[in-house]
Amino acid sequence: MPHDDALSPPLVPPGGAVGVLGGGQLGRMLAGAAAQLGLKTIIYAPETDSPAADCAADTIFAAYDDEVALKRFAESVDVVTLEFENVPVKTLKTLERFGAIVAPGPKALEAAQDRAAEKTLFQSLGAATAPWRLVDNLEDLNAALRDIGTPSILKTRRFGYDGKGQARLDEETEPASAWAAVGASPAILEGFVDFEMEISVIAARGRDGAVAVYDMPRNIHADGILQKSIVPGGRLKDAESAARDIAQKTLAALDYIGVLAIEFFVAKEGGLIVNEFAPRVHNTGHWTLDACAVSQFQQHIRAVCGWPLGAPSRFADAEMENLIGAQADQWRNLAAQPDAALHLYGKAEARPGRKMGHITRLAPLGSKTQTN
Amino acid sequence: MPHDDALSPPLVPPGGAVGVLGGGQLGRMLAGAAAQLGLKTIIYAPETDSPAADCAADTIFAAYDDEVALKRFAESVDVVTLEFENVPVKTLKTLERFGAIVAPGPKALEAAQDRAAEKTLFQSLGAATAPWRLVDNLEDLNAALRDIGTPSILKTRRFGYDGKGQARLDEETEPASAWAAVGASPAILEGFVDFEMEISVIAARGRDGAVAVYDMPRNIHADGILQKSIVPGGRLKDAESAARDIAQKTLAALDYIGVLAIEFFVAKEGGLIVNEFAPRVHNTGHWTLDACAVSQFQQHIRAVCGWPLGAPSRFADAEMENLIGAQADQWRNLAAQPDAALHLYGKAEARPGRKMGHITRLAPLGSKTQTN
Repeated sequence: MPHDDALSPPLVPPGGAVGVLGGGQLGRMLAGAAAQLGLKTIIYAPETDSPAADCAADTIFAAYDDEVALKRFAESVDVVTLEFENVPVKTLKTLERFGAIVAPGPKALEAAQDRAAEKTLFQSLGAATAPWRLVDNLEDLNAALRDIGTPSILKTRRFGYDGKGQARLDEETEPASAWAAVGASPAILEGFVDFEMEISVIAARGRDGAVAVYDMPRNIHADGILQKSIVPGGRLKDAESAARDIAQKTLAALDYIGVLAIEFFVAKEGGLIVNEFAPRVHNTGHWTLDACAVSQFQQHIRAVCGWPLGAPSRFADAEMENLIGAQADQWRNLAAQPDAALHLYGKAEARPGRKMGHITRLAPLGSKTQTN
Repeated sequence: MPHDDALSPPLVPPGGAVGVLGGGQLGRMLAGAAAQLGLKTIIYAPETDSPAADCAADTIFAAYDDEVALKRFAESVDVVTLEFENVPVKTLKTLERFGAIVAPGPKALEAAQDRAAEKTLFQSLGAATAPWRLVDNLEDLNAALRDIGTPSILKTRRFGYDGKGQARLDEETEPASAWAAVGASPAILEGFVDFEMEISVIAARGRDGAVAVYDMPRNIHADGILQKSIVPGGRLKDAESAARDIAQKTLAALDYIGVLAIEFFVAKEGGLIVNEFAPRVHNTGHWTLDACAVSQFQQHIRAVCGWPLGAPSRFADAEMENLIGAQADQWRNLAAQPDAALHLYGKAEARPGRKMGHITRLAPLGSKTQTN
């Protein structure tokens, strides 16, 4: 389709193809957002049980190190992005070698895949993190415990998500059993943060350097899994502007293109502590699908395709609740709730802890402001 | 996926497949709505250039009278619906013969495909229509002109849409040329209505008989093509309750399952005149995608699949503008407009008069109420 500005052609015009690494629900919702903009989505996923495949124009089922498939993928799309931060960095570099434009790039993934690199990044930006120490063996763990004490959390440096690869240490925990619980893998020990609440920032940066930041939700986790995101998040004025500032510095430091999420603790004594970040659209931003003109998924597609970002304005108050495991079996009752947008991810098997869908309950803008 | 009410199982649970006859943008948006509910969509379309195909799990490209393909379609889906009211009624009956559950059914299509049947239906429900006469030949046309006069509009009884198959008659129009202009096909002559404005009602009826009606937009047409739908539509109080009443009677009379749209003229001297109805989701309801928790597309999928209907509540004021032909070439400027949701249909060729996309501009709920 032609466009009206020959001087700065966008990377991917309507009719173009967006490649997405990863075939989960985030890929499914990205495919929906791309479709809204007249774009095709090609999914690349190792597992054939892919919630995204049914909503995409095409899917390549192959391993992340299958160079033949990666070459075909690179050649069939105009830009590559990802919905899963544990895609091997080598996969991105291979795609770039095959001529693909990849966003976000290897730099953001490297920082996201290693908790030590992540903490170092945020400390370098002047953001507070929980106290932490590198733990490469049991001896390191004992030394770290002397510095940081208990309660604390041992977390593998790599491939942790939704509370996996973590062991909590209390006064009576045997260090050796915690070390065994994380698979004796390179880890960090993190001091426990006594927090008032958890919030997150969902921010986007376009190819033109423009930044858009959504209102910040208050997040409620249980067993390491997000249960709810509520927006407005409460009386967050200072925390909100500090979080926005950190997000902007992070986007600039990583020369980031697309949407990222940073999760924060708001400490009991005030002050903002970075928990972790994800170089992708994020579960705590799902409410934007139903409460904003431009959702986080739209925004991400706009950014990676070189389109103008949309205004992140919100038109309703919202409470997003994840439907985890058997909770989704209640889909019929959930569908009957008034003023609620139900989202199911098309997953066949409701395993415990598995995110099967979410529901966003809407209320008129401003109606929930006073109650949080 | 199991559900929690064994007494009244819904027709199509999550994981099921919805078949859609027609492959245009309405099918594309229905596929997106089905995906949100964890359902698969199979498109059936005669033309391979299908905007819906890229968003569906599968597409069968075949003619509406291809019984082998229709049998395969019937066997691969749990329910069949349509996005195009000119699907031959015989196609629906063939699908039913192959065991498919079809909604809306042949009865609604028969009324929608023949302007004489349509007018008769609404008159039987006590709704006003423009004065009209059957015109099967030039002699009929001359007689009808004596009764109805000019200005008036000659419309083919069948297969007209977006202003096609119509000829306007003024004082100086030669009846023979108008008759030729509509292809000398069976037609009706319709008296011209001097209207104040056009509105439409988008209403849904579920398999449990529940009815949901959206707020009514004011619609602006040019050259027989919808340009804009604006909600709230203005000071419509009396007209709105009359329109709602007619919608409920129509849904009941047709034993209708799904979303339908009825377009009305609000006459200069007050009073509501039915223009036409469509047994499907409708262009004047596209704003529900961005301003409601449950869009018309969601609502239609819920209805035909036997799910509970959603509340049709609106959370923003909205103005939907169609992007017709070359208007869509401005997509980049349109994407940069704040508080606007841009929708492009993935059509390659921007022919004049072709609906290429739409944009919905949102404003806080109630902010536009006083200006219409």
